[in-house]
Amino acid sequence: MKLYGFWRSLASYRVRVALALKGLQAQEVSIDLLKGRQNTGEYLAVNPQGVVPALVPDDGGSPLFQSLAILEYLDEIKPEPPLLPKDPRGRARVRGLSLIAAADGHPLITPRIRNYLEKELKQDEAARNRWLAHWTLRALEAIEGHLSKEKETGRFCHGNTPTIADICLASQMIGALAYFSVDTRSIPTAQRIYNACMEIDAFSNAHPLKQAH
Amino acid sequence: MKLYGFWRSLASYRVRVALALKGLQAQEVSIDLLKGRQNTGEYLAVNPQGVVPALVPDDGGSPLFQSLAILEYLDEIKPEPPLLPKDPRGRARVRGLSLIAAADGHPLITPRIRNYLEKELKQDEAARNRWLAHWTLRALEAIEGHLSKEKETGRFCHGNTPTIADICLASQMIGALAYFSVDTRSIPTAQRIYNACMEIDAFSNAHPLKQAH
Repeated sequence: MKLYGFWRSLASYRVRVALALKGLQAQEVSIDLLKGRQNTGEYLAVNPQGVVPALVPDDGGSPLFQSLAILEYLDEIKPEPPLLPKDPRGRARVRGLSLIAAADGHPLITPRIRNYLEKELKQDEAARNRWLAHWTLRALEAIEGHLSKEKETGRFCHGNTPTIADICLASQMIGALAYFSVDTRSIPTAQRIYNACMEIDAFSNAHPLKQAH
Repeated sequence: MKLYGFWRSLASYRVRVALALKGLQAQEVSIDLLKGRQNTGEYLAVNPQGVVPALVPDDGGSPLFQSLAILEYLDEIKPEPPLLPKDPRGRARVRGLSLIAAADGHPLITPRIRNYLEKELKQDEAARNRWLAHWTLRALEAIEGHLSKEKETGRFCHGNTPTIADICLASQMIGALAYFSVDTRSIPTAQRIYNACMEIDAFSNAHPLKQAH
């Protein structure tokens, strides 16, 4: 398989973790978001949205896009170890937690939003950094609201083995800790589960700051 | 079942359509987002994120949250008519299209973002409206980039029966047409498929402007 990603991209991180948990190999092709390479004609032919990641399975065909859709695909083509629980309610909870991070949190901190804040809304760096930290923490606090109260929470977000919710939580925590210096005192359960994730090679070796750049 | 939603909410619209396509009934409880009722203690006990929709299945237990997770749940507990294709690649494509709308488009236009633009970034109404229209169209253009070129596109986003991708596309199109007066000339395939959706009662009867308000 071929993974179009970028070392710094939190959505690429998610796919990197899932591939490692599943024991799948992919050749990673770097699309330099800092240089705007996601908007070249060459990459737009891979992913017309001009975002990473995109995954090209070995069977050829058009590239897969959107990290959560890719995670579900990997779980379907290689069911072990499972990244979703078996029961529909459990699956809904795991998907819901994942979406708080991947839909309500992460899209707000992507390059396209930062550019708009700077160029269209004329926000200076300090205001942009407040935006990034604010929305990153808001999503994590929303996840914490579930994790801290619900009986399904275990060593990980849902029971005692990692699911796609942990992958999404970890990506969001990396943004908070490594990029935006967010004060995480209000999210102790999320922090605890992130620490548990980072004890697993698949999560820690995929960390953005451990990738070639 | 009980659906906590709001007539104007595009994420609530998605669940309303899915329930109707599946022939499932839910009592809808209105949480008035315009009055900030999503942030009352009473509702935060239902959904700690303070957003709609939330769905309480008849088996009791904690409410389900995040519209895409709810759509997948409904498809799992009542498989007919299916809202996802059978093959993993097709499922990945449908989920990817859905996420462009529900993750990359819709979160940017929610009340919490509008409030931040107004109160923290001091953006006037014209600038806020440009933001809403811009990100709504950007997501639709990203979807158009797939729909217009890929052979899987049929009468609907993926083949000739509606999937969760059509539900998400329709919600995004309603934002564009009914709320933000977006010029849709650049997205003819999305517009064509939206028109096909609106010929189906489940889609048209669930329209925000047809709900009691």
